Amino acid sequence: MFPAIYIDEKLTLLEEDMKHFLFVCMFLLLAAGTIFAEGTEETLALYSAAFDMIWLILAAALVFFMQAGFAMVETGLTRAKNASNIIMKNLMDFAAGAVIYWAVGWALMYGSSIGGIIGSDQFFLKGADATTFRDWMFQVVFAATAATIVSGAMAERTKFSAYLVYSVFISGLIYPVSGHWIWNGGWLSELGFHDFAGSTVVHSAGGWAALMGAIILGARKGKYVKSGSKVTVNAIPGHNMPLAALGVFILWFGWYGFNAGSTLSGTDMHIASVAMTTTLAAAAGAIAAMAVSWIWFGKPDPSMSLNGALAGLVGITAGCAVTDPTGAVVIGLIAGILVVLSVEFFDKVLHIDDPVGAISVHGMCGLWGTLAVGLFATPAGAEYAGINSGLFYGGGTAQLGIQIVGILSVFAWVAVTAGVLFIILKKTMGLRVEESEELQGLDITEHGSESYSGFQIFTNM
Amino acid sequence: MFPAIYIDEKLTLLEEDMKHFLFVCMFLLLAAGTIFAEGTEETLALYSAAFDMIWLILAAALVFFMQAGFAMVETGLTRAKNASNIIMKNLMDFAAGAVIYWAVGWALMYGSSIGGIIGSDQFFLKGADATTFRDWMFQVVFAATAATIVSGAMAERTKFSAYLVYSVFISGLIYPVSGHWIWNGGWLSELGFHDFAGSTVVHSAGGWAALMGAIILGARKGKYVKSGSKVTVNAIPGHNMPLAALGVFILWFGWYGFNAGSTLSGTDMHIASVAMTTTLAAAAGAIAAMAVSWIWFGKPDPSMSLNGALAGLVGITAGCAVTDPTGAVVIGLIAGILVVLSVEFFDKVLHIDDPVGAISVHGMCGLWGTLAVGLFATPAGAEYAGINSGLFYGGGTAQLGIQIVGILSVFAWVAVTAGVLFIILKKTMGLRVEESEELQGLDITEHGSESYSGFQIFTNM
Amino acid sequence: MFPAIYIDEKLTLLEEDMKHFLFVCMFLLLAAGTIFAEGTEETLALYSAAFDMIWLILAAALVFFMQAGFAMVETGLTRAKNASNIIMKNLMDFAAGAVIYWAVGWALMYGSSIGGIIGSDQFFLKGADATTFRDWMFQVVFAATAATIVSGAMAERTKFSAYLVYSVFISGLIYPVSGHWIWNGGWLSELGFHDFAGSTVVHSAGGWAALMGAIILGARKGKYVKSGSKVTVNAIPGHNMPLAALGVFILWFGWYGFNAGSTLSGTDMHIASVAMTTTLAAAAGAIAAMAVSWIWFGKPDPSMSLNGALAGLVGITAGCAVTDPTGAVVIGLIAGILVVLSVEFFDKVLHIDDPVGAISVHGMCGLWGTLAVGLFATPAGAEYAGINSGLFYGGGTAQLGIQIVGILSVFAWVAVTAGVLFIILKKTMGLRVEESEELQGLDITEHGSESYSGFQIFTNM
Repeated sequence: MFPAIYIDEKLTLLEEDMKHFLFVCMFLLLAAGTIFAEGTEETLALYSAAFDMIWLILAAALVFFMQAGFAMVETGLTRAKNASNIIMKNLMDFAAGAVIYWAVGWALMYGSSIGGIIGSDQFFLKGADATTFRDWMFQVVFAATAATIVSGAMAERTKFSAYLVYSVFISGLIYPVSGHWIWNGGWLSELGFHDFAGSTVVHSAGGWAALMGAIILGARKGKYVKSGSKVTVNAIPGHNMPLAALGVFILWFGWYGFNAGSTLSGTDMHIASVAMTTTLAAAAGAIAAMAVSWIWFGKPDPSMSLNGALAGLVGITAGCAVTDPTGAVVIGLIAGILVVLSVEFFDKVLHIDDPVGAISVHGMCGLWGTLAVGLFATPAGAEYAGINSGLFYGGGTAQLGIQIVGILSVFAWVAVTAGVLFIILKKTMGLRVEESEELQGLDITEHGSESYSGFQIFTNM
Repeated sequence: MFPAIYIDEKLTLLEEDMKHFLFVCMFLLLAAGTIFAEGTEETLALYSAAFDMIWLILAAALVFFMQAGFAMVETGLTRAKNASNIIMKNLMDFAAGAVIYWAVGWALMYGSSIGGIIGSDQFFLKGADATTFRDWMFQVVFAATAATIVSGAMAERTKFSAYLVYSVFISGLIYPVSGHWIWNGGWLSELGFHDFAGSTVVHSAGGWAALMGAIILGARKGKYVKSGSKVTVNAIPGHNMPLAALGVFILWFGWYGFNAGSTLSGTDMHIASVAMTTTLAAAAGAIAAMAVSWIWFGKPDPSMSLNGALAGLVGITAGCAVTDPTGAVVIGLIAGILVVLSVEFFDKVLHIDDPVGAISVHGMCGLWGTLAVGLFATPAGAEYAGINSGLFYGGGTAQLGIQIVGILSVFAWVAVTAGVLFIILKKTMGLRVEESEELQGLDITEHGSESYSGFQIFTNM
Repeated sequence: MFPAIYIDEKLTLLEEDMKHFLFVCMFLLLAAGTIFAEGTEETLALYSAAFDMIWLILAAALVFFMQAGFAMVETGLTRAKNASNIIMKNLMDFAAGAVIYWAVGWALMYGSSIGGIIGSDQFFLKGADATTFRDWMFQVVFAATAATIVSGAMAERTKFSAYLVYSVFISGLIYPVSGHWIWNGGWLSELGFHDFAGSTVVHSAGGWAALMGAIILGARKGKYVKSGSKVTVNAIPGHNMPLAALGVFILWFGWYGFNAGSTLSGTDMHIASVAMTTTLAAAAGAIAAMAVSWIWFGKPDPSMSLNGALAGLVGITAGCAVTDPTGAVVIGLIAGILVVLSVEFFDKVLHIDDPVGAISVHGMCGLWGTLAVGLFATPAGAEYAGINSGLFYGGGTAQLGIQIVGILSVFAWVAVTAGVLFIILKKTMGLRVEESEELQGLDITEHGSESYSGFQIFTNM
C-alpha cells in the first residue's frame, strides 16, 4: 500500500497547490483591479471636478461681463449729463455687492437652512474649500445682476449715496433670502417651484425692487407734465444708441453663461438645449418687439427691439432647460410683445418713470418666464427638472399653480422689503437729488465730472 | 486494481476541478474586466462628449459676440445719422436668421443630402438630440455671420424692410446650400475642397452677396459725383473710430471661437495651432495694411489698419489648421496688402460704394485665404485635413486647382442667387430709401429715432 | 509497478497542466489589464491635455480681449482729438508684439536658459508642437499686455513711429528677459520669488517702462504751467467716460483669464480661489479709491473709482493663488488707496504727466501686489506655491525679502533698458510730435483721420 499512500499524499498536495494557485490568481486579479480601479476612479473624479470648475468659472466670467452690458444699456438709454453717474452706480453696486455677498449674502442664501427660510452659516466664506469658492464665484455675479437691474429704473435722479446703501441691502439680504427659498432647497424648492437660471430669483427680484424704487422716487422732472387734469407724457430719449446696442449684445453674450452655466455641471448634456432655447427666445423677442412697435408706432423702434431681445432672454431664463425649440420661440415672442405693452402701460397709464424699461424687461418678463414653465415644460424637460409637465404639454395646471405661488411670494418679499428700504432711505439720508442737480446733470453735481469733455452737448432737456 | 481505479477517479475529479477553477478564474477576470471597463468606458464617453459640448458652446458664444463686433465696426465706419439703422440691421439679421435657421436653414445645410447638393430633413430641428442642439448652436452663429457681412456694404441707403427679407433668404437658403456642399459632405467636400472655418463658406459668401447688393443698390448720394466724363470720388468718413476699433477687437476675440472652435472637438490638439495661426495672421494683416497705407497715403491709416487685422483673420480662416506660423504670417501679410488694394480698386476704379470695405475684407480676402490653402498647406496639416499639401510645401497644384473650383462655385451660386434676390426686391418692395430720407439719415426716417440725442451733430454731408 | 508509473506520469502531466493553466491565467490577466490600462491611460492622458488646452486657449482669448479694454480706457481718459492715435497704438503694439514675440520674444523668455538669465532657442517657434503653440498663445497675450500699458502714460504726444519701435523692443527683449528670470526657472525663480500671474512680470514691467517714457517725453502742453516759481497743475479731462468704464469692465472680465488661467492647468482646483480673490480685490479696490476720492475731493470720482478697480486687480495678480478672501480684500483696499495717492503724487508733486494713471495703476500697484505676497501668503497657499508664508500669517520676513529683491531687480532692468531705449529714440527719430501737431491733435497730424467726424468738438484745450 506504499504507493497508494504516496499517491494520496501527492494528490492532496496537488489539491492544496491548486487551491493556493487559485487564491494567488484571484488575489492578483483583485489587487490589480483594485489598484488600477482606484487610480482610475481618482483621476475620473478629478476630471469630473475639473469639468465643473472650468465650466462654472468661465460661465461666471461671462455673467460678470453682463455688468458691462447693463452699464452700456443704461448709459445709452439715458442722457449724456448722467452717463458717469450711471456708470458709477453699475460699477459700485458690483463692488459693494461682491464684498457684502462674501460677508453676509452667501451665508444667508447658501448656508445651512433654518426651516427653509434663511441660511445661517459660512459668513465670510468661513470653512470654504475649492468647491465653495467656485460656487460663490458663480453666485456672486447673479447677486450683482439682481442689484444692478434697479439702477436703470432709478436713473437720472437718485442720490448716489442712497443708491450705495440700497445695493448693499439687496445683495446682502433681500436677494439672498428669496434665493434661498428657491435655489438652496428652501420652502419654494420643496414645493416644486422651478426657476432654472433666475427669471424670478434674479430678474423679477431686481424688477420688483426697481418698481418700488421708481414709485417711491417719483418721475424725472419734465417727464410727466400736468396741466389741469391732463398729463402730457414726454419722451426723454437716450443719448447713445450704439452703446445701448453694444450693451444688449454683451448681455446676450453673457446670458450663455447665465443660462447654460446654470446646469451647474460641465458634464450635463442639457447645456446644448439651454443654449439653443436661449438663442431662439432672444431672437423671437427681438422680432416680436420690433413688429409690435412697427405696427403700433409706424416704425420699427430700435430701443424697443433691443429691449425685445432682452425680454426674450429674461423670459426663457426660468424654463430654458425644460422647453423645446417651439416653446422657446413662443415664450420669446410673447415676451417681446409683453415688453412693449408693459413699457407703454407703466409710462402712459401708470406714469411710473422707468428710463430704461427695467421694470418691464426684468420684472414683467421675469414673471412671464416663470409662469411659462407651467405652460411649456415638456415631459422630458419636466423629468430632468423633477417637476410636472406644463399645461400645453399634457401636465395639467399643477406646475402652473406652484409657479404662481413662487411668483407671488417673491413679489411680496421683495416689494415689501425694498419698499421699506427705499422709504427709510427717503426719510433719512434722502433718496433723490435736488431739482437743480437733476437739471444740471448728476455727473457734475454728484461726481464733479463730465462724461463727454470737449463735445458740444445740449443739456437743457 | 482497486487503488488504480480509485486513483484514476480521483485524478479525473482533480482534472475536472482544475478546469472548473480555470473557468471560474477566467470568468471572474472577464466579468470584473467587463464591468469595470464598461463603467469606465461609459464615463470616458461622457467626458468626451462633455469636452465637445463645453468647447463648442463656449466657441458658439464667442462667435455670437462677433455680432457686436460687426455692429460696432459698421456703426463706427458710417455716419452718425445712420447709426441706429445699422444697429437694427445687425440685431435683426441675427434674430431673423436664428429663427429661419432653426426652421429651414439647418435642414438644408445639415439634413440628409440629396446628391451632395442640398439637405432634406430635420426642419424645425425635428428629432434633434443634445448633439444636434449643440451643433445647431455652433452653426447658427456662423450663418448669422455670413448674413451680417452684407449690412456693411449696403449701409446708409438700404430700406430696412428689404434688408429683413434679404437676411431671411441668405440665412435660410443661400448660405445653407453652399455650406452643405462643403461642410456636410456635399460635392465640393467629395472633391477634396478644404475650408476649415469658412473663408469661403462664410466670409466670401457674405462678401459676394455684399458685392451684388452694393452693385444693384448703387452708391450713396454724393459719393461719386460726375461732372462731364470726370468722376470725383468723395470720402465719407465714419463717425466713431473708437467704436470701430472696439468692433475689430471684439471680432478678433470672437474669431478664436470661430477658427479654433471649428475643430468641432474639445480634445483635438490642433486647437493650439489654430489659435496661433489666427493670431499671427491677424497681426501680420494689420501691419501690412498699415504699412501699405503709410507708403501710399503718407500716413498710417486707422480704418485701413483695422480692416487689415480683419483681412488677416478672414485670410487665415480657411487654412488655419493646415498652415505653420510662417505660412500664417505670409497669408496675413498678403491679406493686409490685398485689402488696401481692393478697397481702393472697388472705390476708385469700379466705383462700387462699400462704406465699410466688406466686399474687400470678406469677399476678396476670403477668396485669398481659400486659395492659400492650396499654397501653404504643410504636409502635416494636409494629412490632418485629408487633403494635398500646398504648392509651396511640395504638394504641386492639385489642391490649388480644387480650391479654385470651390471658390468659383460658391461665387457663382451666391452671386446669381443674391443677385436675383436683390433685383426682385428692387422691383417689388424697393431696395433703397428715398433720396430725401438718405440725406436726413435713416435713423429718423426709418426708425423715428436719434442715435445721439443731445449731441451737436452735422448731418449735411 | 506499472500502475504506479502510470499514475506518476499522470500526476506529473497534471502538475504541468496546472502550471500551464496558471500561466495562461496570469498572462490573460496581465494582457487584459495591460491592454485595458494602456487604452484607458492613453485616453486619460489625452483628456488631461484637453483640459489644459481648452482652459489655456480660452484664457488666452480672454487676455487678448484685455487689449480692447486698454484701448477703451486709454481712449476714454484722453481727448477726442487723439482717439484714433491711441487706438492705433493699442492695435499695432499687439500686432507688432505678436510677430516679434513669435520671432524672438518667446525664445528669449522660454528657450533653454543660459545661466538663468536668458533663453536661447526656439526662435520663430522652431520645433514647436501643440503644447508649445498652446503655451505661446497664452504667453503672447501677456507680452502684449506689458507693452500696451505704456501707451496710456505716453498718450497724446508720442510720435507713432517711435512708439512702434518701442513696442517691438519691449515685447521682443525687455519683457521676455525679466519674464525668463521669474517664469522660466531663471535666477529669481530659483531664489523663491513668487508672482503668480504677473503683478511684477507684466504690470510693474509695463508701469516702469511707462514711467521712463513719461519722464523722458515730458508733459503735455498746458498740463503744468509755470509762472515764476509756481506751477499750476491743470486737469485735462478725458473725452468719453462710458468708453473708459467699458474698458475697465472688459479688463476685469479678461482678468479672469489672466489670473485664473495662470494655473496653467485646467485640472487645478485653485482656479476657484484665484477667481474669488481676483473678484474681491477688484471690488475692494474700487470701494477704497471711491472712498478716498470722496473724502479728499468731496465727491466720489468716476475715473479714480475705475482706476481703483484696476488697482485692486493689479494688486491681487501676484498673490491671487496664495491669499484667502480676507487677504484679498485687504490687498484690494490698500491698492485702491494707493492708486489715488500715487496718481496725485506723480501729478501734483513730481509733475510727471501720465494721462491715464498707468504708472500708478500698473507700476505702483504691481509693486504693492508683489510685496503683498510676502505679507498675506497663507500657509496653504505658500505650500501650493512652494514659498514661505507671509509675515501676517506666521511666515516671518523671509518671503518679503525675496519679493523685494524681485521688485528691485525688475525695476532696475526695465528702468535702465526702457530708459536707454527712449533716450535713443529721442535722439534719433524723435520721440515726441511737434507742438503744433499736439495742439491740433494726433488723429489729424499723425493719421490724417478724424475720430468723430460730424460731431461738434472743441479741441482748443
